[in-house]
Amino acid sequence: MGGFYGGILCKSGKEVDFLARSDIQHIKQFGIKVDSPLGNFTLNPVSVFSSSVELPETDVIIIATKTTSNHLLPKLISPIVRKDTIILVMQNGLGMEAELKLAFPQARVIAGMCFICTQKPSPGYVRHIDKGAVLLSPLNTEDAPLLEIIQADFMNAGIECTCDLDLVGARWKKLLWNIPFNGMSVVLNADTKKMLSCESGITMARELMKEVIMGADACGSILSEQVMEDMIEFTGIMEPYEPSMKLDYVQGRPMEVHYMYHRPIRAAAEHGVRLPKVEMLAAQLDFLNEKNLVN
Amino acid sequence: MGGFYGGILCKSGKEVDFLARSDIQHIKQFGIKVDSPLGNFTLNPVSVFSSSVELPETDVIIIATKTTSNHLLPKLISPIVRKDTIILVMQNGLGMEAELKLAFPQARVIAGMCFICTQKPSPGYVRHIDKGAVLLSPLNTEDAPLLEIIQADFMNAGIECTCDLDLVGARWKKLLWNIPFNGMSVVLNADTKKMLSCESGITMARELMKEVIMGADACGSILSEQVMEDMIEFTGIMEPYEPSMKLDYVQGRPMEVHYMYHRPIRAAAEHGVRLPKVEMLAAQLDFLNEKNLVN
Repeated sequence: MGGFYGGILCKSGKEVDFLARSDIQHIKQFGIKVDSPLGNFTLNPVSVFSSSVELPETDVIIIATKTTSNHLLPKLISPIVRKDTIILVMQNGLGMEAELKLAFPQARVIAGMCFICTQKPSPGYVRHIDKGAVLLSPLNTEDAPLLEIIQADFMNAGIECTCDLDLVGARWKKLLWNIPFNGMSVVLNADTKKMLSCESGITMARELMKEVIMGADACGSILSEQVMEDMIEFTGIMEPYEPSMKLDYVQGRPMEVHYMYHRPIRAAAEHGVRLPKVEMLAAQLDFLNEKNLVN
Repeated sequence: MGGFYGGILCKSGKEVDFLARSDIQHIKQFGIKVDSPLGNFTLNPVSVFSSSVELPETDVIIIATKTTSNHLLPKLISPIVRKDTIILVMQNGLGMEAELKLAFPQARVIAGMCFICTQKPSPGYVRHIDKGAVLLSPLNTEDAPLLEIIQADFMNAGIECTCDLDLVGARWKKLLWNIPFNGMSVVLNADTKKMLSCESGITMARELMKEVIMGADACGSILSEQVMEDMIEFTGIMEPYEPSMKLDYVQGRPMEVHYMYHRPIRAAAEHGVRLPKVEMLAAQLDFLNEKNLVN
């Protein structure tokens, strides 16, 4: 994710510094290679760092890590957060933006919801499979004017980018897909096509999604059942897809259960609404997470 | 199940005729072999038949098939059901007795809840692992006097046997174990020890069991939370055990989802109570059943 969006922004002429972990030596030597329907390219040399204290000053910090490491974020980015630094959160789940704002009240926090399929087959190599649109939404509506600037940068780089001032609604709408299809793909060991290839799978997705709609509603955002039905239909006919959580599970990485499940469950509960089926799925994922990481 | 209980009743001197399917030739030639902590034995010759029309008259019909074939039962046993024939239903789930009574109003239907671990490693060979107690309960309380006769037969054969006049309560109490641990063992790919080896597994079991208690309550039977906690504790410390549903799934046989999940869900719903987590688990099992049987 970071390799793709950072790479394509860099290619379009923006100044981008990368923070890399295990890939650092490879990127220093060979750069970042991106294969994409938008055009293949390689960046070399790349401005890449292994520690955030070395990072140059920046206007925008793009967070493109998994939320499973979010407890480390404040310490990680604090060296480069100044007054009015924009923190662009390109992650899935609920509540990440408010947490970052709490850690950095002087910053401007903006959500970047990504509709994209990418893979990282090897160090420094990103394979962009499909889609790629970004939806921007501000944590505080007073930061809305900033969206246009970021939007222009993405569009200038060839990325479809839209804005939505209702962050809560936008996050819940993304959860409407993520909650059923990420969890089900792991628990049922199925890709999107298989999940929706029989009545029991469709019913299960719909029942989970109805609870997500209830949760969104409790938090003040209206999601229609038509949006749900459209998503189910669209997902059933698209190319078979293994959601990121399935890949994480299969590859023995921690799954993003906290921000994708427990935060929405908690947010709904704080407004008096229980999401029991989502709770059940979350508990199963917690169990599989724990056993997966132990083994 | 049928091989064990029929076998041990036969060994104790009762006249038992067996109806066998795929094992028939083996049993005719080699008899039925039972390895058990109660003592190993082999019955040979065995009075065994491949069709119920050949079966001799009987006072008691023991139903020890999987509930997945229950739609075939009325036709199967109709040749041997007479007035006052006792139909002893040694199956798991809810609602089997009422269905059989509807098919055979002239019969006496009694539930036999079995607390037993058995395996069938090969044709005609039963391995009795542990436990074996039977709890008898009449569909109609007017049939209560019959229980003592059957109870005496079981006890005479060395089987612990008790009676409970509250069929609904007894069935729900058995479901209190079956619903969480059968389904979870399949979906989480875990035996009892693994399921209860971490907080998320214990919580999941407890949440499902709380719903079962709600369902029992809706149907007029009180199950205490203490019974639940005792079951969780007992199950966590007993020898690691793969419930029958797990074995069915792994061996590609249909799982008993209908009578073990959908009937209790429906019974609770008829009394205005929803069991959403049990519903979620049932939907997952339906999905896995369907995919398992297709492959």
